[in-house]
Amino acid sequence: MLKSSLKQTNERYKLFGLKELRTVAKVEATLLRSAREWLDRNGFMEVIVPHVVNATGSCEIVDTLFRVPYFGKDAYLTQTGQLYLEALVPFLGGKVWTFGSSFRAEPRADDRHLTEFSLLELEFEGDFNALLNTIEDMFSSMMAAVQELPEVMNWMNLKHPFKRMRYEDAIAELGLTFGMDTTSADEKKLLENNDDQPMFITHFPKDLKYFNMRQNDADSRIVNSADFLLPFGGESAGAAEREFNPNKLRQRLVESGMWTQFIGDGGDKHAFDWYLDAYQKYDYKLHSGFGMGINRVTKYVLQLDDIRATTVYPTNAETIY
Amino acid sequence: MLKSSLKQTNERYKLFGLKELRTVAKVEATLLRSAREWLDRNGFMEVIVPHVVNATGSCEIVDTLFRVPYFGKDAYLTQTGQLYLEALVPFLGGKVWTFGSSFRAEPRADDRHLTEFSLLELEFEGDFNALLNTIEDMFSSMMAAVQELPEVMNWMNLKHPFKRMRYEDAIAELGLTFGMDTTSADEKKLLENNDDQPMFITHFPKDLKYFNMRQNDADSRIVNSADFLLPFGGESAGAAEREFNPNKLRQRLVESGMWTQFIGDGGDKHAFDWYLDAYQKYDYKLHSGFGMGINRVTKYVLQLDDIRATTVYPTNAETIY
Repeated sequence: MLKSSLKQTNERYKLFGLKELRTVAKVEATLLRSAREWLDRNGFMEVIVPHVVNATGSCEIVDTLFRVPYFGKDAYLTQTGQLYLEALVPFLGGKVWTFGSSFRAEPRADDRHLTEFSLLELEFEGDFNALLNTIEDMFSSMMAAVQELPEVMNWMNLKHPFKRMRYEDAIAELGLTFGMDTTSADEKKLLENNDDQPMFITHFPKDLKYFNMRQNDADSRIVNSADFLLPFGGESAGAAEREFNPNKLRQRLVESGMWTQFIGDGGDKHAFDWYLDAYQKYDYKLHSGFGMGINRVTKYVLQLDDIRATTVYPTNAETIY
Repeated sequence: MLKSSLKQTNERYKLFGLKELRTVAKVEATLLRSAREWLDRNGFMEVIVPHVVNATGSCEIVDTLFRVPYFGKDAYLTQTGQLYLEALVPFLGGKVWTFGSSFRAEPRADDRHLTEFSLLELEFEGDFNALLNTIEDMFSSMMAAVQELPEVMNWMNLKHPFKRMRYEDAIAELGLTFGMDTTSADEKKLLENNDDQPMFITHFPKDLKYFNMRQNDADSRIVNSADFLLPFGGESAGAAEREFNPNKLRQRLVESGMWTQFIGDGGDKHAFDWYLDAYQKYDYKLHSGFGMGINRVTKYVLQLDDIRATTVYPTNAETIY
């Protein structure tokens, strides 16, 4: 267990000699290498997406966008590359991925928050079932690789297939009502009730999720989404089928809380035009995707209690390097 | 040849259907995959470095730093991860690498300038000769991989070892005087005189280069540096032995034009402290490193005339996505 030796962020170089830092670096590198090997074996193509972006690089939480003065305009630091990947799916063989930093202007500098973290994102032609299978398969391949490291205790005993629990069943178990979001304490409880095995919570209420997540055909209140939960890591991947009907997409966008807030803050009304126009111009099939937070996976693998211990240079509101 | 079809940056999605875009994406992905395979085979460890940084993420050209308002302070978008990698070399097996975006607040939106481009950076224990051999070996491995793509014409006929020309000989050939920097027109001429084979220009004047490049033992006016030149790509990698004497490093820093400019602009006097302190605290051996611009390598492989044709989402002063 690496319980606390890597919490320090000021003068981080003072930790360079610690065995724990080397272990974290090795785990991070091994997770990335094994994920990429899985992606290669499964025919996914790497795409470089931009990191200084318009609002199409934001996710739900527009108030945590970092603004970058950009030649007299405002740009933002990316939070997700999903729309940039999505739009390319039919043109690059139906399976694409990217890896890079995701940025959050998160003022809390504590054991749970970083301003920059590593995100692996996949988008591909396929439905909800294929999506959950993909996450489980890639994740399992990554776990097999890290467990070969002598520094990692072989404590995981993954039981397949991972549990897929509907949001409605999760809130019943937690005593919540429809429409309430789950907290990290809730996630912890659900995991404990599942023998601390990785699990999916599926079919969240539409209003809790990003505008591009596809509504369920049988129940329009919910979307075909999944949160992938890990002990220590919490929500370690967010996944969904993507809406691909251009009119529906436009409607979902302008009805979203994100849009209201973004436009209310003086954001560019045309920011999503290119994305919506692409769906109008081209023929898209049903596709799905997810983003996996590598720091949270490292937290799981090493059973860490602090997000600052998951990478060599953890960045938060108090510390840049 | 892809001479002009991918220059358009506004409404980039209109190009998604072009075969040329798919080719560029495949070349970029293949270059990265083959580079990583080479790095794995040769025992280099991947490290995630921060992208929102203090001035230790800048390179020579501090006036092209993007500023990011950061919780009441100024931060910058990274231009190079080299100092972050360097400082870790002895702790992570002596060989490290990172891949990610490098940012330049470059106002010119033309065939030669992007504000964000992809940089592969290596740092390792070894001398100048090992450095040049490493570049040539990794690059050759990348070229072997892309030439297996049916989309890439097998036009390269690489002759090894690549020519290593000293700066002093280069300026003699070009009719320049000591202290003058070479322009891209100069590089083109040197390449033409070398049968358009990739080549190194070595041992530049100290005052033209970054403060951490190690001075030559026999001639203190020059540093053990190299520019790696490619037809179409121009300077596609910058490389050097790194100074590792902490007092020398501090002296070189404060004497540098970069420092004068940075401090003159109100920059943080303590920005480089962590880096200098690490060299004071720990025992470093002679190490070397380089950064390779992947967009320029793609430009070479596909013999492109425009940097905007080298990636799916090229970003410049006029266009963000």
